[in-house]
Parts: sequence; C-alpha cells; structure tokens
Amino acid sequence: MANTDCVSVRVFSLNCWGIRYLSKHCSQRYQMIGEMLCKEQHDIVLLQEVWSEKDFICLKVKLASTHPYSHYFKSGVIGSGLAIFSKHRIQDTFLYRYSLNGYPYMAHHGDWFAGKAVGMAILNLAGLTVNVYVTHLHAEYSRETDSYLPHRVVQAWELQQFIRHTSTGADVVIMGGDLNMHPQDLGCRLLMSYTGLRDCYTETAKFDGCENGITLIADNLFVGKNELIPFEKGIRIDYILFKGSSKTNVYCDFMSTTKGSVPGHPLPYSDHEALTAELRLESKIPAQTGSDKTQDTPTEKLAELVDTLTEARTEVKVGLHCAERMRYTAARTGVMGLALLFLELAIAAVPCFTLGAEQPFPRISFYLLAALCFVILLTTSLLYIFYTMELKSLQGAEDQMRLSVGSLQEKLRGFPVAQPHNAPQRSPVEKLPSALDAEE
Amino acid sequence: MANTDCVSVRVFSLNCWGIRYLSKHCSQRYQMIGEMLCKEQHDIVLLQEVWSEKDFICLKVKLASTHPYSHYFKSGVIGSGLAIFSKHRIQDTFLYRYSLNGYPYMAHHGDWFAGKAVGMAILNLAGLTVNVYVTHLHAEYSRETDSYLPHRVVQAWELQQFIRHTSTGADVVIMGGDLNMHPQDLGCRLLMSYTGLRDCYTETAKFDGCENGITLIADNLFVGKNELIPFEKGIRIDYILFKGSSKTNVYCDFMSTTKGSVPGHPLPYSDHEALTAELRLESKIPAQTGSDKTQDTPTEKLAELVDTLTEARTEVKVGLHCAERMRYTAARTGVMGLALLFLELAIAAVPCFTLGAEQPFPRISFYLLAALCFVILLTTSLLYIFYTMELKSLQGAEDQMRLSVGSLQEKLRGFPVAQPHNAPQRSPVEKLPSALDAEE
Repeated sequence: MANTDCVSVRVFSLNCWGIRYLSKHCSQRYQMIGEMLCKEQHDIVLLQEVWSEKDFICLKVKLASTHPYSHYFKSGVIGSGLAIFSKHRIQDTFLYRYSLNGYPYMAHHGDWFAGKAVGMAILNLAGLTVNVYVTHLHAEYSRETDSYLPHRVVQAWELQQFIRHTSTGADVVIMGGDLNMHPQDLGCRLLMSYTGLRDCYTETAKFDGCENGITLIADNLFVGKNELIPFEKGIRIDYILFKGSSKTNVYCDFMSTTKGSVPGHPLPYSDHEALTAELRLESKIPAQTGSDKTQDTPTEKLAELVDTLTEARTEVKVGLHCAERMRYTAARTGVMGLALLFLELAIAAVPCFTLGAEQPFPRISFYLLAALCFVILLTTSLLYIFYTMELKSLQGAEDQMRLSVGSLQEKLRGFPVAQPHNAPQRSPVEKLPSALDAEE
Repeated sequence: MANTDCVSVRVFSLNCWGIRYLSKHCSQRYQMIGEMLCKEQHDIVLLQEVWSEKDFICLKVKLASTHPYSHYFKSGVIGSGLAIFSKHRIQDTFLYRYSLNGYPYMAHHGDWFAGKAVGMAILNLAGLTVNVYVTHLHAEYSRETDSYLPHRVVQAWELQQFIRHTSTGADVVIMGGDLNMHPQDLGCRLLMSYTGLRDCYTETAKFDGCENGITLIADNLFVGKNELIPFEKGIRIDYILFKGSSKTNVYCDFMSTTKGSVPGHPLPYSDHEALTAELRLESKIPAQTGSDKTQDTPTEKLAELVDTLTEARTEVKVGLHCAERMRYTAARTGVMGLALLFLELAIAAVPCFTLGAEQPFPRISFYLLAALCFVILLTTSLLYIFYTMELKSLQGAEDQMRLSVGSLQEKLRGFPVAQPHNAPQRSPVEKLPSALDAEE
C-alpha cells in the first residue's frame, strides 16, 4: 500500500457487435476500434460481442505493445464474446456461465448459443487488488412482451452473487458491460443494491456524451429507429460500475460516451456507444480493516433491498409457471405422439391376426406417420429435458432469493430468531412437506 | 471475535446413493441416516446423491429440531444431489455448475443429467465466517480407460477456482464430498495444492475407521467386489478438507468413518462410508490481518504446483484432441447423411425429367432412406453443438491454466517481467496469430 495514495485508472467498455459476415462493416469497425484503443491507451478495456476468436487475436496483435495482457472468455457454442485487455498484469481469471440464457430453439435470437457469462480478471494495480468483471446479459427483443425477463432477472441475480462472493478480498471492484437493462429495471436495482456497486454515469464529476447517458441511440446509423420505440432518442443499457473497499475510496472524475459517429470516420464503432470512465483510487487511512459487507448497510437500504428481492422472486415465479406450462405441453404432446404410434401399430397388426384381410392403409402413409411419431417423440423428449433444467435453475434461484430475504428481514429486525430462516410464519414441520409449492 | 478463542465443530459427509426405486433399500437407508443424524447432532451435515427432493424434504422434517437450517442445491435435469444441514444459520448460498460433466448420450452413466456442481453455504459460527462447500465430481467407471478424466480434471480445476475466489473473506473453509479421485490423483493434488486445503484424514490427531481411510470398501454389502479391482480392500474417494486463515487456526482432533455395517442395523447407510471430523477452530492473536493467498507459499510448493498444473494441462489437451476428433466425426457423418439425401433426391428426380421411365426404387425404401438421412442429420447436428461446447470449455480451462502457470513461474522467478504472461518464450506479435494451436 506504499505508493497508492492516489491512482488514476481509465476504463473502457464497448459492445462491439462483432458477428462476422452478419454485422455491418465488421472488419472495418474492428480496424477502427483497434486503432482507437492503441491511441487512447486505457488501463482496462472491456469488450462484449467479440464473437469470433480470430477478431480477438487480431486485436491482441494490434494491442500487443499498449495492452500486453489480455484474456478471451470461452463458453457456450459460439463463445461468451467477452474479452479483456489490460495494461496491467492479469493475475487470475474465472468465468461463471449463467444457468439460464434463452432457448436453443429460438435460434434467430441466438442468445442460447452464445453461452452468456460473466468473466472476472484480477489485476494488481499499484499494489491494489482490482477485481474487474465483464458481462453481457440476455438481450431484450420486446419490452412489452419480454418472455426472457425471468432469465435476465436470474442472470442479474447470479451476477450479483458472483461479484459479491468473489470480490471480498478486492480493494477495488470494476464492472463493465452490456446489461440489456434500463437503469431502473429490476435486474439493475438488484445488482446495484446488493453489491453496493455505483454507476459511473450518476457518480461522475464531469460528463461528456449522449443525453441521459444513453448508449443505444437513434443517431447511430446502425440502430433501426423502430427498435427504440417508445424511447425515441435512445436507451441506456451499457454500464461501467465501481466500488471501493474498507482500504480504498474510488471516485469517478470523468465519464464520456461516443455520440454515434466518430470524428474523421464514416462509421460508428458499433451499434452501441462506447463508454470511458476515469476512476481515481485513493487509499484510506488504515483506521480499521475488515469487510465492507452489507452488515453496515442502513435500514432503509435493507428495506429497499427486501422489496427489490420480493419483486425479483415474483418475476422468477412467473418464469417458473411459464416453464412448468411449457414442460407440461411438451410432455402431453409426447404422450400423444406415443399414443398415435401405438394406435398405428395396432391397426397395422390387425391384418396379421385376421389372415388374408386387406392392409388397412397404404404402406407409404404408414411409414410417414411412423416417422412423424418418432420426430414428435424425439423433439418433445429434448424439450422436456430442457424445460426440466430451466425449472431447476429457476427454482434454485428462487430458493436462494427466499433465503436472502429471510436473512435480510432478520437483519432488519436486528436480532436472530429461533425459527428456520425460510419458514418465518409457520412451524417447520407444518411447512416442509409442501415446501415446493407452498410459497406460490 | 470475542468468544471464539476455541470452538469445536463436528462435520459429517456422506454420499447417500439415493436413486429412488434403483438404489437398494433406499427409503430404509434414508430412515437410518435421518435417525443417526438426529442422534449425532453434527454441526454441519454435507450430503451427496440426494437425488430426489422428496427425500431431502423428508430429512428436513426429521431434522427440523436438531438442524433447523438447510439448503438443497438444484441443477441439471435430475438435480445436483447436494444438500447441507446445519445447526447454525445459513447466511448465504451460491452454486457453481461445472462446465463439463460427461455426455448426455451416456445415459446409463447418468452424470450429465445430474448436473454436477459445487454448492457453497456461508455460516456464522461463534463470530467466525465459515465457508462450507459440498461437491460431487464425475464418477470413474474404469480406471484403465477413463474417458472422463479430462472432464474430472476440469471439474477439479473449477472447484479450486470457485473455493479460492469465494473464500477470501472466510475465517474458516470446510469442504466435504465425493471427489471420485484417489488421494494422489491429479485432480486431488490440483485442488489441495492450489487452495491450501488440508485433508482431515492425514491431519487428524486420532482416527477410527477403515484402514487407510478408505470410503468405498469391499466389506460394504452394496459394493461389488469387481468394481474395486485392482484395489482389493477398497479406495478413498470421499473427503473432508479444511483450511484456516490469517485470523483462525484450524485443527482436526478426531476423524472417523463407518466400517461397512452399522451396529444394530442389517444394512450400511450407503455404498460409500460416512465421514465424521471434529475440527477445533482457534482465534489467532491479531498480529497482522490480511490475506492468506499463495504469495506466502514457499518455493518448493510453487514448483510443485507448476508441475501439477502442467500435468493438468496435458490431460486437458488429451480431452481437447478427443473432443476435436469426435466433433470432426460428427461433422463428417452429418455431411455424409446430407450427401446421401441429395443423391436419393437426384435419383428420384431423374424419372420426372425422363417422363414415362420406371421409378428407380420402391417408394417404401425411398421414404425409409429419407427418414434415416433426417435422423442422421439431426443427431449429428446435436452432437456437433455438444462437442463445440465441450471444446470451448476445455479450451477455456486450458487458457486459464496457462495463465496460472505463467503467474506462478513469475512468482518463482521472483520478479515481474515485461513480456505478456502467456507468451514467455516468444515475442507477442510472433506468437499471437497461431495462439490457439501453437501450444499443442
């Protein structure tokens, strides 16, 4: 802690929209991004949607002298798309894959194949342990009928868990990425209130960028105006968040975003705007060392957190009901396919017993129908397995949320009670046999 | 830290072998386990293979008065099978699903469907933060031709990452579970040397149990003698591990295992032996607080860790080659299926152009062949997707291991070098374009 009285760190975050052959002017934009990063020399560069590892390697070559340390996080079928470049040595990395991430049969949305995750890199920056996180949550394709909302809420829940549990030893926490949530959305509130992370945009001393800090803007030539309705000017879904510790104070001195076009270039860097934040890390006088956990959180904050958690649990329960319904439909369709197959076999078997009778239906129809039955059985089996996994993940998140609400309510009450935390109203024996459904 | 001068904690771990309707005497054994846990009143009970949530709930009801706090970890299709019961309040939980866990088409082995994971619970025990982990790794079905070895090594790698990164703030770390690895196996060495966890069996002051601490023994009536060859008496694959911190010393005063049969009962509790450890937690004089990270590790330990990591990387690379080969086979078979389909369509199309000619093959064969082609295409597509995900996970683990080897080697050298950590021999520009394959 000798030379860390005041350290300045420049952090950059951008969703690169890097789908090779599909994203417009992909290689040209990567070229621009690489040149800009070389010139700007941020301390930490957090990129999302770098879907192709080849593009990552190209950037790595280009940034070899300015950012000698880097990591590309691999996950899912396509990859997580997450990459970190750093001027400072990356000591360690860790990846957490979200348990829920859309549906494989929604191939045109592609999120499931991308294996969305949160990547962590631990840096040593002038004697300080800095935990850096980069993530990209499930996209929101329609704000009115957002069937992915429970998945995104569970992702936000797992993100806050991951950050909270892995950053206990960190002096500074920095998170950047595309959360695909507006600042006041449930998942954002869950993340910020639980981890204590602060938003660079709201905390910065000076700001230069788009109005209201929006990062998906109507003025960007890659953004379709229809996508933004009803937010004419644009929305804020990309963030740089930060947090200090008992040893370090962190301040945001300056923040900027790109504004659609890039001076001197015909194209923007991406369909999202790029974020840059200048953070100042200041060592605290070592009065007392210890944890900066939520136990120091004031009562209003705790109450707010309980409300947010309750809202999140409701959202997850909506997802649970939906998944249960879908699984039931898959099972029913499967049973119907099986019944049809048996019926067909029975009809075909009749002439075998009553020798000489005419075959009741032509062979071609017979085989076609049998093939159809098999396809139905296979598809519904796969869907049944998939929905069961979705259900388990949703139930798991709901269980953990219930536990957390219990713990928080206890803290609010200010004393531990003798009852089990997850059965505050009823006696454990009364409650347990129906524990799964009772809370619905 | 007032009243924690010396605290005693009794920890229990058992693989329950709880497959409803398939495991022998399942409900009778759960009955016995429940009664024993009620009587013994361990502080922390870590169970694996509690495959049915109903069995967990039955246990929960039975242990409501002795162990009012519990958590069941949900994951995968069947569930992770992991459960924790505690006399002390569970403050928080977190689950990490291993990225690799066998193959879905190896349904008779069932591991993929189980969604193997590591569960964490944070307890507050007499003012100390105790992080408790429970896990169950992929089974070893054949020691000679263990095709799951790379998966198990990656699981051990992710387990150590998870424990190391989430336990920074803990005063005491306790891990229990069925690692499916012998004490000297690569994954075990990786886990113990990286996390600094110590083995209760080797550390205990007093031991009462099976010879060499074996937990899968020939004397257990549920264990087939053939399963154990060439280890006639049995093998040690279940563990309780522990670690203190800069604030707390931990000692193992006593450890015991069951010895096959249970006095007064006709049956053992499970096909695995149960483990009980008595740990003593002692507060250190607060000389200096801080982290107990590997930076204090002596040079020999670091060198050993580098060797273990190198061995792990080799094993992961073996898995990588295997997955690549399997993916290639899937792709080739898929292409052949497609070619066959086109060929068939071409042959069928000929008579349409040369009007009046005879249909070259009977309709039934035509439809059957077409159906076969579709099934081949569907299956190989699914396999291709699956192997791609396996490849990404293996590559990800290998990347992280390479990073760690670099970091460790640097520590060994005792000074930071200017080169990127993951390119110690070559210049970055030279190396990067072939970064993926260069290290093979």
